[in-house]
Amino acid sequence: MQRRIYLRKMDLNEAMDQYFTELEIEGFFKDQVETVPVKAACKRILSKPVFAKRSVPDYNSSAVDGISVRTADTIGAKQNSPKVLSKDQFSFVNTGNSLNPQHDAVIMIENVHIVSESQVEIRETVHPLANVRTVGEDVCVGEMIFPRYKQLEPFDLSLLLAAGIMQVEVIKQLSCAIIPTGSEIVDPEQKLHQGEIPETNSTMIRTFLEQMNVKSVVYGVVPDDLASIEKAVKEAMEKHDVILLNGGSSAGDADYTYQVVEKLGKIIVHGINIKPGKPTVLGIVRGKPVIGLPGYPGSCYIVLSTLLASLIERKYRYVPKKSHVLRAVSARRLFSSISEEEYVHVGVGKVYDRYVFFPFKRGASILSSLSKADGTVVIPKGIEVVEEGETVYVDCYKSREEMDNNIIVSGSHDISLSFLADSVKKTDYMVNLVISNVGSMGGIRAISKKCAHIAGIHLFDPSNDEYNIPFIKKYKIDAILVHLCKRQQGLLVQKGNPKSIHSISDLTRKDIRFVNRQKSSGTRILLDYLLHMEGIDSSAIKGYENEEYTHTLVALKIKKDLADVGLGISSVAKVFDLDFIPIKWERYDLLVLSKFYSDPRFELIMKVLKSKEFRQEIENLTGYDFSEAGQIVYEGRYSQ
Amino acid sequence: MQRRIYLRKMDLNEAMDQYFTELEIEGFFKDQVETVPVKAACKRILSKPVFAKRSVPDYNSSAVDGISVRTADTIGAKQNSPKVLSKDQFSFVNTGNSLNPQHDAVIMIENVHIVSESQVEIRETVHPLANVRTVGEDVCVGEMIFPRYKQLEPFDLSLLLAAGIMQVEVIKQLSCAIIPTGSEIVDPEQKLHQGEIPETNSTMIRTFLEQMNVKSVVYGVVPDDLASIEKAVKEAMEKHDVILLNGGSSAGDADYTYQVVEKLGKIIVHGINIKPGKPTVLGIVRGKPVIGLPGYPGSCYIVLSTLLASLIERKYRYVPKKSHVLRAVSARRLFSSISEEEYVHVGVGKVYDRYVFFPFKRGASILSSLSKADGTVVIPKGIEVVEEGETVYVDCYKSREEMDNNIIVSGSHDISLSFLADSVKKTDYMVNLVISNVGSMGGIRAISKKCAHIAGIHLFDPSNDEYNIPFIKKYKIDAILVHLCKRQQGLLVQKGNPKSIHSISDLTRKDIRFVNRQKSSGTRILLDYLLHMEGIDSSAIKGYENEEYTHTLVALKIKKDLADVGLGISSVAKVFDLDFIPIKWERYDLLVLSKFYSDPRFELIMKVLKSKEFRQEIENLTGYDFSEAGQIVYEGRYSQ
Repeated sequence: MQRRIYLRKMDLNEAMDQYFTELEIEGFFKDQVETVPVKAACKRILSKPVFAKRSVPDYNSSAVDGISVRTADTIGAKQNSPKVLSKDQFSFVNTGNSLNPQHDAVIMIENVHIVSESQVEIRETVHPLANVRTVGEDVCVGEMIFPRYKQLEPFDLSLLLAAGIMQVEVIKQLSCAIIPTGSEIVDPEQKLHQGEIPETNSTMIRTFLEQMNVKSVVYGVVPDDLASIEKAVKEAMEKHDVILLNGGSSAGDADYTYQVVEKLGKIIVHGINIKPGKPTVLGIVRGKPVIGLPGYPGSCYIVLSTLLASLIERKYRYVPKKSHVLRAVSARRLFSSISEEEYVHVGVGKVYDRYVFFPFKRGASILSSLSKADGTVVIPKGIEVVEEGETVYVDCYKSREEMDNNIIVSGSHDISLSFLADSVKKTDYMVNLVISNVGSMGGIRAISKKCAHIAGIHLFDPSNDEYNIPFIKKYKIDAILVHLCKRQQGLLVQKGNPKSIHSISDLTRKDIRFVNRQKSSGTRILLDYLLHMEGIDSSAIKGYENEEYTHTLVALKIKKDLADVGLGISSVAKVFDLDFIPIKWERYDLLVLSKFYSDPRFELIMKVLKSKEFRQEIENLTGYDFSEAGQIVYEGRYSQ
Repeated sequence: MQRRIYLRKMDLNEAMDQYFTELEIEGFFKDQVETVPVKAACKRILSKPVFAKRSVPDYNSSAVDGISVRTADTIGAKQNSPKVLSKDQFSFVNTGNSLNPQHDAVIMIENVHIVSESQVEIRETVHPLANVRTVGEDVCVGEMIFPRYKQLEPFDLSLLLAAGIMQVEVIKQLSCAIIPTGSEIVDPEQKLHQGEIPETNSTMIRTFLEQMNVKSVVYGVVPDDLASIEKAVKEAMEKHDVILLNGGSSAGDADYTYQVVEKLGKIIVHGINIKPGKPTVLGIVRGKPVIGLPGYPGSCYIVLSTLLASLIERKYRYVPKKSHVLRAVSARRLFSSISEEEYVHVGVGKVYDRYVFFPFKRGASILSSLSKADGTVVIPKGIEVVEEGETVYVDCYKSREEMDNNIIVSGSHDISLSFLADSVKKTDYMVNLVISNVGSMGGIRAISKKCAHIAGIHLFDPSNDEYNIPFIKKYKIDAILVHLCKRQQGLLVQKGNPKSIHSISDLTRKDIRFVNRQKSSGTRILLDYLLHMEGIDSSAIKGYENEEYTHTLVALKIKKDLADVGLGISSVAKVFDLDFIPIKWERYDLLVLSKFYSDPRFELIMKVLKSKEFRQEIENLTGYDFSEAGQIVYEGRYSQ
């Protein structure tokens, strides 16, 4: 009879490191995937990025209950000088109704005096698209909704369904065998005799695994005998990913776990320096973890909640959520309704040792903001504005560790940023790019106020025909400019170019409806420069005042025949199957806070930018040139 | 066609208050219960207290792998002078094996030199019960394991099974009908036409409810028509506890939720001052909540995660868990193994604006400590002691709010404290009594060090035949003494009194095995006083050095024939079906920190103490007199 003493006991962290490294080598942590219906995907983790198959919403609709109108018909209406609209000038609409194509705005029912079914009195002049949910407001078709390794929450499922996605590829659920061992172990339901121990650990293990989304099967109790245990392990190996033996993991004479694992595979760790929890066996058989959990329940739980939880989290690339409250500085000025308590979904990141938050798109109909959010800011009734730089409490859903890993990317929108976010996750799934679209000048402001780590900018300076650098010099920004890409700007028009648009000068034509980008965006600055060069007065362009915040929203407007032309990049023309009239190649660079430039997370980004894998991901985007991605363009060094 | 404007909109808190108050009146929040197998009870909430049906463990067993011995045979063995034991002096035992009745201690296998199967060499003198798990170490039969409203975690299930409990009565799972409404709402799987909206909210609502342990059924989309919606609601009312209508809750002309609820029952709230989330209808039909959730997904989710979550939490008496780390002061001196990282499960409470923690019972085999714990203190390798008063980090599983409501009850053990804890939960389920058994003098120390809110004490002062008050005066404790009960102390002996024990003087008989209480417990002080009065030398009593920490453990030892007699209270004699020889009525009082005396939570305790309900709960305990419970006995007023 052989009596075994523990192998060299290891500290818990050392044991996990060694075990996980060995499992990594054996391929255990490689993603295994399965496809599941979205309706059954709650809490599952995406194994690859998901792109919208349709826009949300898919057409212009009323955002409120009220009447839809032509804005032209409302001009002059005021509180003290009402205007009467007749039957052909308005339609009653409910929230969500699609808009009469003749109408371009909605007045809330609360602000309408209904004289009769065919006559109403209004007391306000409304601007175009007032109270209208525009197409793609929440999500644009073709847009990357989530990068890989996103864990799906209830609202994410709704968003996926709304975007036309019915099935998703997710990390496969682990299957676990639980094998209680021990000749003294009996069914807890029976009366105990002297020396018998009720088998209660399997219930703890099974329900613990359930909470972590792991399937498990509890085997019958296997007596303390080498052959029986070996047989049970071999059988379980056929059907499960992880084998958990319970009991028989210490150094006693009847402890066969060690012997069986040694015979069938290899032992990595025997004995961990934790109390309780010491008698643990960590082995690998045919690439699968075979773990001997201690028989004492208190020990067993500590090993479950530390080592096994970490193993499952790593396999699932799961980042534990830990809700908490923190104080953070507002990156923007936020207006709020004085008569209501408002819930604003925000992104949060740590910039220069303080937490900064910024709002995602707001509105009752918006779901994507909830999906992106790290937390919520509740603006109480009676508060009209949260100032830029003001510190408020944020209710966070994610752990502080997770938010500390967030990289806030502000500035101008580019499709490749989503791919960059996804590629970074491939390398280190804990690092998140949190993208906020505020235009190039907004990005410059965010960096100078230290409210973002990185800003995407494409700002053209006509005085010296140079991109971006003149602006860093002008505003004395302490940041490094790293090149991302060159991209082709041009006119986006409907397929086949039915209105024969060929140059900037066509924009003033009476039959042409233009859709613009917002002030301070690089594209808008380019447009205004081009108009200036051609001597065109912007007031002559129909739709010049219709502003959208992204290239994709501009493309979508044209696709949906809500406009004929807009200025944008060629890649979105391809995504939306539009025609494209090239105008200019522009430089799109990343402005990186100088302190962040040496952060390991930015080093990771640089590595990704230069990697073959990233360039393969984006090679299908047309009108791009990534050949110089990652080159340092300029170093703005100004004292703080 | 009628166009409705919102009723007076309410703030969210006001709306919840009014709605929940109405639902309370209609009886919705009354506990509904069901019985489920323990194996299927994870995350369920107990509707009544649970009492152990068997002890854990149920017999004395080896706590380690090693050899069991008679301590007498080990006397004289030392590191540098080993002793050899022969075949008849030891048995090999594995962890969990029941002990040879002749043996009273175990030596770890690591410390044994095995000469042959029939001869071993030992190098230590061991004390009685060394490395022995004594019967009832984790849980004693008859003990209240959990008070009502405890949410069951995986380890709680194991503990229940070990204690012989196979089924539990829990709060019934809510059943919820989800009824999407709206003529424009269609299956998300189909291609959308202009004006159609995909039905995606029901997936969000259903999965959200699943996360909260609520069953739900999603009904087919009901068109915007009064009769259809009314029919759907009536049908759903038959089968479900809560009816959720989605869409149709704003003030538009096609919003029928309001009309249907008004017709079938009553509207409590229409319109809430939150953004997003305003168009919400809160109604009651036949005592059941009928809620109109906003159709916009962003609004719908805010209402789900605030109002509906609160409603479910209240119905389930669920206290949200929020893990976090806090700094707390150790109420005790804690020794730890220098070579291992130790996980200690602790209770935490806030006393005088600082957090205080104390350890629950430690050991690999102990599960009850995990069930009771508010958090874990990890004592790193290399640290031998955490001093009393030292501040360390505690990993807490419960929210700060929940721990702020903890009342630390230290001092002497009494069965009625568990009933008090349970009765307090009946009145306010957020208030927890966290009970730590350290004996009466330990309780005095805890109060004077401000490491507990309350201490149970029964300290006899022979010099003036008075209980408790002399000790407050002596130690100048700034605390109020509130009477809990008088209880009868006496000798606990086996059923039928087979050894004819009749008085203290019998304890010195050679055939009598005594089991003692620990030093500084009130019962021990009483015993030593009685021995003194009779002129008995304690060294003449066999078993005087065998100390147990509670009355129940003393009774259990006698029940299991591991001892013949002990001093204890009469109520445990009844629980364990033992004979009882009365000796003295003693006063058991609660010593209450003076600042805590005016705390609303102590006022609640006073209310409970004087209530008829509490007295009914404990009327079956024999040997008690609660007639003066809640009377103030003495006010110790000493400057801080």
